[in-house]
Amino acid sequence: MRTVDLIHRKRDGEELSPEEVHFLVDGYTRGEIPDYQTSAFLMAVFYSGMSDREVSALTQSFIASGTTLDLSSIPGVKVDKHSTGGVGDKTSLISAPLAAAAGVVVPMISGRALGHTGGTLDKLESIPGFRTDLSLDEFREQLAKHNLAFIGQTAEVAPADGRFYALRDVTATVESIPLIASSIMAKKIAVGLDAVVLDVKVGAGAFMKKQVDARRLAQMMVGIGRRMDKRVQALITDMNQPLGYAVGNALEIMEVSQTLQNAGPADLTRLSLELAARMIFLGKITKTLDEAREMAQARLLDGSGYRKFKEVITAQGGNAQVLDRFELLPNATGAQEITTARGGYVSGIDAELIGQASSMIGAGRGAKEDSIDPAVGVILEVKVGQKIEAGSILCRLYYTNGDQLEGAAELVEDAFRISQHPVDERDLILEVVS
Amino acid sequence: MRTVDLIHRKRDGEELSPEEVHFLVDGYTRGEIPDYQTSAFLMAVFYSGMSDREVSALTQSFIASGTTLDLSSIPGVKVDKHSTGGVGDKTSLISAPLAAAAGVVVPMISGRALGHTGGTLDKLESIPGFRTDLSLDEFREQLAKHNLAFIGQTAEVAPADGRFYALRDVTATVESIPLIASSIMAKKIAVGLDAVVLDVKVGAGAFMKKQVDARRLAQMMVGIGRRMDKRVQALITDMNQPLGYAVGNALEIMEVSQTLQNAGPADLTRLSLELAARMIFLGKITKTLDEAREMAQARLLDGSGYRKFKEVITAQGGNAQVLDRFELLPNATGAQEITTARGGYVSGIDAELIGQASSMIGAGRGAKEDSIDPAVGVILEVKVGQKIEAGSILCRLYYTNGDQLEGAAELVEDAFRISQHPVDERDLILEVVS
Repeated sequence: MRTVDLIHRKRDGEELSPEEVHFLVDGYTRGEIPDYQTSAFLMAVFYSGMSDREVSALTQSFIASGTTLDLSSIPGVKVDKHSTGGVGDKTSLISAPLAAAAGVVVPMISGRALGHTGGTLDKLESIPGFRTDLSLDEFREQLAKHNLAFIGQTAEVAPADGRFYALRDVTATVESIPLIASSIMAKKIAVGLDAVVLDVKVGAGAFMKKQVDARRLAQMMVGIGRRMDKRVQALITDMNQPLGYAVGNALEIMEVSQTLQNAGPADLTRLSLELAARMIFLGKITKTLDEAREMAQARLLDGSGYRKFKEVITAQGGNAQVLDRFELLPNATGAQEITTARGGYVSGIDAELIGQASSMIGAGRGAKEDSIDPAVGVILEVKVGQKIEAGSILCRLYYTNGDQLEGAAELVEDAFRISQHPVDERDLILEVVS
Repeated sequence: MRTVDLIHRKRDGEELSPEEVHFLVDGYTRGEIPDYQTSAFLMAVFYSGMSDREVSALTQSFIASGTTLDLSSIPGVKVDKHSTGGVGDKTSLISAPLAAAAGVVVPMISGRALGHTGGTLDKLESIPGFRTDLSLDEFREQLAKHNLAFIGQTAEVAPADGRFYALRDVTATVESIPLIASSIMAKKIAVGLDAVVLDVKVGAGAFMKKQVDARRLAQMMVGIGRRMDKRVQALITDMNQPLGYAVGNALEIMEVSQTLQNAGPADLTRLSLELAARMIFLGKITKTLDEAREMAQARLLDGSGYRKFKEVITAQGGNAQVLDRFELLPNATGAQEITTARGGYVSGIDAELIGQASSMIGAGRGAKEDSIDPAVGVILEVKVGQKIEAGSILCRLYYTNGDQLEGAAELVEDAFRISQHPVDERDLILEVVS
């Protein structure tokens, strides 16, 4: 088997066998196939796509490149929830406690902020004392005891995916649906999950700008899961405005706390409940999805989801009091209001620009090695559809260092679209792929 | 300017500016842009193609990466002839002496055999004593004195092209029309030519399998030339059977000698005369192409082309007597006849299979560093259209080492198509692009 021949065939749109896909992944991971052949292969995949069989083989090769977690000692169905990345998307911190409170085992493997999108780990780490670096033994123990534990991606799980991702990042081959699908699914399946609920974001603030692409990605991930005997459902959800009002790490923890106490934004609450319901359903706690929806709702209303989150914060070394006393969280020292010059109806809030602005003042990272400021971010004062007067406050920027404030404020101003006519509300959950 | 952004834009089908193309070529040549980004870029070019402006910028960047030859001290128009590579294609060794005998200055920069196609340098080196490693001063001197000199590609001319080619070879990005066009034209223009006659081969034995691709390549090369004030004409010619009867280095020198004495195969003679005529016309020796055709014919009939080739062989240290006494050339020690089991009409002779068989017994190279056996090869006994009886000899394999003989014989047997019905003769010169 010659690497150049495999690139050639993929380039010409032929299907590679599972053995051939494995040869490429394994060879690259071992350092036997050079970067330059792998990057040419990735670009050929970008254009030619991959068959279902190929993308499953790629996923399995990524999984086989490292260790897999054995969670079989923990009773119950293990269900995770994964978002393709959004702005203000703190649903994991709401739906996971709700599902865990309903009896689902939720091994939550999360990522960090990059570019304009936030990361669950960074949000959690804004809670003083919170540890995301649990050992695998600690992780298993906590899961058995509390049904829920949060950790980051470990280098031992699917290391080939990490190497591929680093190469894609510098060769303009990130935006490939089979490459995204296999990367996500490999990391999920390698950690011993039985089921996954996927939240595929679409719109200006998401990776997928078009619904047709989001659907293809969702279908591909659901298909990979099916072929590996995992139950997978995907929601395709709108990211044409930030989710909720808060964008930024500690700011989002505050909004999570409010939402778990049933005092959060309508859109965030609705999506978190639907995700939790599907986790409960896939976790076989209920027989029907409707029963699962009722249960998720009940766990919100009776406060058990809120208590579950506190319990897990404490278990991971964090100060759970922050959920009641926000002054214990890192707080920004300055705030700048952004107002509108003219009245009308808010017709759009570009989530990507809001995310970029938030990242620019310190809430996110330009590069992986950058550090973040947990206190800063953006809080919206309006949402799409709302009527506003000239001079109304659109949002506030919370900052500790004013250096990048001016640039961030400009971005944020550009993010708001004001129309003279009332605008129709857009659906939040656009479709379901299962 | 970030390399990843340029790859991204090319990937999405956008046009890069000349400065951006130069940035990529220059950065790669200096070692500042890594292989893996360049290979991803090349694969993006494979799929997205290049605009006329981009391919001209690429050609100019290749030229600017090294030294350019100054031939201005030699009076007269400098005209070269280039073939995209065929099987049994020895036209350079016939048309160049004819054109030089007519007064054209022909600085002939040639290549070596690779894969199933032959190389002019290897053919010349089968002549005992012949030196292809002339210094640039020797090259200029010989051109001034004899109008014709043969050398190989030097590392100083368009070195970036060499680096790009080596990378394309291992990343399945060789078969890209803009990459082929810029590679050929950069090497031609960098050596100080005023005009080029291109022979773009199409068919089973050629790089371009389809006439539409050959036409696009020809048009692109003619366009690059035009934008750099070079006169370029391209013939698109059939390579669905080998040209002439002889395939293999010394065997082809013998056929060249016969053809320059007007005793060669009809197809080879016809194409060599047309190429020579276009060199004479572009070299401004005549006012019209028809006059140039008459002149090429005259230089063949009066033996001056033949004498010119002998003169140049002597000038480059070779033994010119070989053209009259073939026993002075390397001769194979064994010959194997390939016969046909059934009679009929020869409807096709797959030039690629003949070329592969010839290469397999030692006439060519699998890899650049392989050595070749100048004596061996294939001599056809029939051509397409000919009527044959069962038991007729189709060709003979000439070999010195019988190791690969059986495999080569099988390839050759597969190369011949025999039909029960008379077949129409195919045009040799399919079209002209100028």
